Amino acid sequence: MAPELSRAARREFLDAALALAAQTSALIRRTLARGPRVKTKPDGSYVTDADLAAEKLLRAGLSRRFPSHGICGEELPPVRPAASYQWLLDPIDGTLSFTRGIPLFGTIVGLWRRETPLVGVIDLPGLGQTCAAAAGLGCFLDGTRLRLGAARRFSDELIAVCYRDQFERCGKAAAFDRLMKCGAQVRTYGDCFGHVLAARGAVGAMIDFDINPWDLAATQILIEEAGGKYVVLGRRGAKSDIVFGKPAVVDRLVRLLR
Amino acid sequence: MAPELSRAARREFLDAALALAAQTSALIRRTLARGPRVKTKPDGSYVTDADLAAEKLLRAGLSRRFPSHGICGEELPPVRPAASYQWLLDPIDGTLSFTRGIPLFGTIVGLWRRETPLVGVIDLPGLGQTCAAAAGLGCFLDGTRLRLGAARRFSDELIAVCYRDQFERCGKAAAFDRLMKCGAQVRTYGDCFGHVLAARGAVGAMIDFDINPWDLAATQILIEEAGGKYVVLGRRGAKSDIVFGKPAVVDRLVRLLR
Repeated sequence: MAPELSRAARREFLDAALALAAQTSALIRRTLARGPRVKTKPDGSYVTDADLAAEKLLRAGLSRRFPSHGICGEELPPVRPAASYQWLLDPIDGTLSFTRGIPLFGTIVGLWRRETPLVGVIDLPGLGQTCAAAAGLGCFLDGTRLRLGAARRFSDELIAVCYRDQFERCGKAAAFDRLMKCGAQVRTYGDCFGHVLAARGAVGAMIDFDINPWDLAATQILIEEAGGKYVVLGRRGAKSDIVFGKPAVVDRLVRLLR
Repeated sequence: MAPELSRAARREFLDAALALAAQTSALIRRTLARGPRVKTKPDGSYVTDADLAAEKLLRAGLSRRFPSHGICGEELPPVRPAASYQWLLDPIDGTLSFTRGIPLFGTIVGLWRRETPLVGVIDLPGLGQTCAAAAGLGCFLDGTRLRLGAARRFSDELIAVCYRDQFERCGKAAAFDRLMKCGAQVRTYGDCFGHVLAARGAVGAMIDFDINPWDLAATQILIEEAGGKYVVLGRRGAKSDIVFGKPAVVDRLVRLLR
């Protein structure tokens, strides 16, 4: 965390992120109800009218409140990329789930100062859940403080893992196949839905491979403020492989994956 | 379907199942809010106070309205097992998810006359969704008629598959590992959550292995009334392996699994 940043300042950043996430959540639920308009991006992934509208809403709100801060989001070009405070945004993480009406997608908002995460919010409009944390202020699910408990016996832990194509993209499909047989109960709960499950301790840990900066914008601060461990296993350009959750489970998975 | 059973009679059975599912849904949400009491069963699976309370509620309601019908549920002994109408009940399918607060569990209620499914209801209390069908009356999600669309290109389809331990239990772990590489986007959306995704067409099809009669109590009628295909791939004693969803996707998965 940033020692010279006051508690009031951290609280203000968090409250701003939460207020904007409440607005995107309502927007995304309205779009889901009428059916989103879907386009395919050059990389083969999907984007919808809700992705763009939600990112514009977040950018407008953040620029108004924090005009000196930078913003980097999935769908639009960065603004003020040299600013020391940077907001990272993924308006809809799990767009494929969103387009199919599977309620396991969400909005990610994170504030960083250089390499240090200050605020993280993951809002899950399909489930009506919001997970939020700020440095030194704790991690909360809908206002209830989250504190990760002790690890269970490994065979009793649920493990969330991203989708196999994410491992394939970085030539690590064999690691995915090995994970599936690791002795814990492994489920492909991808995207920010899995990140929230790990912050809650509903799964012992999550493994997410080959993800973009905005996909992990909120996760380190959520996990660490809940008393968990966050490990970057690898980086390739802007892409990262991360493992996070209860410290003992994370350690075991890191050994398995290395 | 049963030609000699009137539309009014089928509607009455469906309405009774829906009314009882609304009651169990409220009961299960209350238990979830205060935290369920969990016990381990002799087979290593979990049971909670909500499983037992919900099954008792269903049994009492069905016995009062249909005193000549049999009832077979997961948690309590069968009643009137020789009756020609049989209600199959799973008060909480996905108990492990329920105990961890993962909202992808549900209540299954199905009415069968010998080998013919007449009514099926899957209620998902954690998502506030109810999927219901009766023979000749269609399949509905929260009152909206479901009709499965055409299959997508196979690589664009999501496929739901149960957990790897279900394949392991019947010596078919290799089939699970093969599925994970089948070229479609495979996700472990287990239990009745996956069954509803298939009835909605949110996934192209689902594969569920080594499941009990009450786990599949509602699925055949839901899928067939939505215009889908339901295939029993194997049976061992009371356990079944099933594949269901959009007909073209089911056919392709059946070829892959055989």
